[in-house]
Amino acid sequence: MVSLIQEASGRIFPYVWHTPLVRSEPLSRPGRGKVWLKLESLQPTGAFKVRPAFNAILTHLEQARRAGVVTSSSGNFAQATAYAARELGVDAQIVMMRGASPFKIERTRQFGGDVVLCEDTFESRWETTFRIQRESGRLLLHPYDSEETIAGDGTIGIELLEDLESDFCVVVPVSGGGLVAGIAAAVKAFRPACRVIGVQPEANPSMAESKRQGSRVTVPALGSMADALSVLTPGELTFEIVRELVDDVVLVEEDEFAAAVRLLAEEQKLVAEPGGAAAVAAWMAGKVDNRGLDVVCIVSGGNIVPAKFAGLLQQADMAIAG
Amino acid sequence: MVSLIQEASGRIFPYVWHTPLVRSEPLSRPGRGKVWLKLESLQPTGAFKVRPAFNAILTHLEQARRAGVVTSSSGNFAQATAYAARELGVDAQIVMMRGASPFKIERTRQFGGDVVLCEDTFESRWETTFRIQRESGRLLLHPYDSEETIAGDGTIGIELLEDLESDFCVVVPVSGGGLVAGIAAAVKAFRPACRVIGVQPEANPSMAESKRQGSRVTVPALGSMADALSVLTPGELTFEIVRELVDDVVLVEEDEFAAAVRLLAEEQKLVAEPGGAAAVAAWMAGKVDNRGLDVVCIVSGGNIVPAKFAGLLQQADMAIAG
Repeated sequence: MVSLIQEASGRIFPYVWHTPLVRSEPLSRPGRGKVWLKLESLQPTGAFKVRPAFNAILTHLEQARRAGVVTSSSGNFAQATAYAARELGVDAQIVMMRGASPFKIERTRQFGGDVVLCEDTFESRWETTFRIQRESGRLLLHPYDSEETIAGDGTIGIELLEDLESDFCVVVPVSGGGLVAGIAAAVKAFRPACRVIGVQPEANPSMAESKRQGSRVTVPALGSMADALSVLTPGELTFEIVRELVDDVVLVEEDEFAAAVRLLAEEQKLVAEPGGAAAVAAWMAGKVDNRGLDVVCIVSGGNIVPAKFAGLLQQADMAIAG
Repeated sequence: MVSLIQEASGRIFPYVWHTPLVRSEPLSRPGRGKVWLKLESLQPTGAFKVRPAFNAILTHLEQARRAGVVTSSSGNFAQATAYAARELGVDAQIVMMRGASPFKIERTRQFGGDVVLCEDTFESRWETTFRIQRESGRLLLHPYDSEETIAGDGTIGIELLEDLESDFCVVVPVSGGGLVAGIAAAVKAFRPACRVIGVQPEANPSMAESKRQGSRVTVPALGSMADALSVLTPGELTFEIVRELVDDVVLVEEDEFAAAVRLLAEEQKLVAEPGGAAAVAAWMAGKVDNRGLDVVCIVSGGNIVPAKFAGLLQQADMAIAG
């Protein structure tokens, strides 16, 4: 996998940024190591997903240009695919659930994606996606469980290795597991003493539970404000890597997501969506065992509805006033 | 001045960050050059003011430790001074107007500053500050009009020269003029073909009007949501540099500040206060003549009251709904 990641790093620039890694004073705890934030929210489309989207399309560019692409996503991969396809002159159909964030649906259309709405189940989403693929011959892009997407995600790990001289503990939001798998594959290959910790919502512990049981399990959909972390069964490829290379997968509660979004806005001046703030939430809640290493929290995305974001900030004001 | 700036660059690290310079897709306009954002909002205390605060205190550290420091500020220099003083083991008294942003007063106290409130005029603020200085023998730190503060501000210019290989047009929020003077002194010394554009609120055109008239003038206080850009008479030192080196000072309206704050939040995933978004506002409003050069907008600070920020975002939602 690591050679695929290195190839991806050479392929996806200059379409995506080598994002900033910034020191966080508000998150530092005396005696527990420095805290860094990796700002994937600053990528075009506001999330790390442009990395796998560009890598997948560029890997099969001729086919993509001829036949178009199709994918399905809860939102951030949808926006990224629409954006990458437009930049590369490729036609993109994107299957999203009717109940997906209207903000993310709207933005996917703004980036030029042809959005196909389906029922509110993963079964319906995949059924619709595969039907389109079969009928149209489009190139199917998997949002997390393919070598191309995992390799694209892993380019973040390569950047961390370039930017940090010492070993570190990287904390990563987990949905289907592509991001944490890619980062773990890159980081552990070159610095096995680094730690990699995944984070999921308490409401969706699919990867944590699968890792605990040693095999992929499906958990019931309970709903979380972290709408980006909604995959209920880990990917096959991603789970194999997580089982082997990821040190732990921890869970955060809804109010911990909210606290992290607020801290990032008020103290760190960053807009993060709840799923994008999962690593910060886990660190703030004391759930990350960094073994004295410097901590890197991946801030994976910032695509939150403005009104929802405003609501979270106003709760903070009330808390201060009280 | 430029040698003072270079000395400051050597002095203020590692207390402040070399902040990220990030590409902005949402602000780019085809055929008009790339747009970069310099993220001073990511500094400790959420604004560039830690640069001049650390430089001023470190330049006179022995005296500062013995006698303490005193300064006056509308808010961001207050927080920065409180923070820098605490980090360096120095006692800090900070004079702020009763009408200053309660959020900034509160944060100044949180960073350990001893806040002294005065009447809501610049006369009262300076009178109080000078009285404290006279009676206590504290080291007086000027928020913008001293060589130490201008040199600290100018370290941003050094970083831009390091990070960008080609000539550029840098757009800079202006209050008393320290930031734009420092950046202009650094940038023009090494790359005279770069452009430097200052930005003030229409409601406070003190530097623009002074530059037009060729001498320092005082303008009436009209009030702007950009509370960080409230100085009504340019500094003496800063005005001399602006007169000589700054290409233009342009003015933005209140709704242009609001639009810039919203765009930075929604598209760029950054929390900026209105004054901190002034450069972006000017660029969005088509008021920056970049002559084909790449554009750097300084995002100078992010200290906005959460409720006010939430209110601006919700206006955006209404605009979309309408």
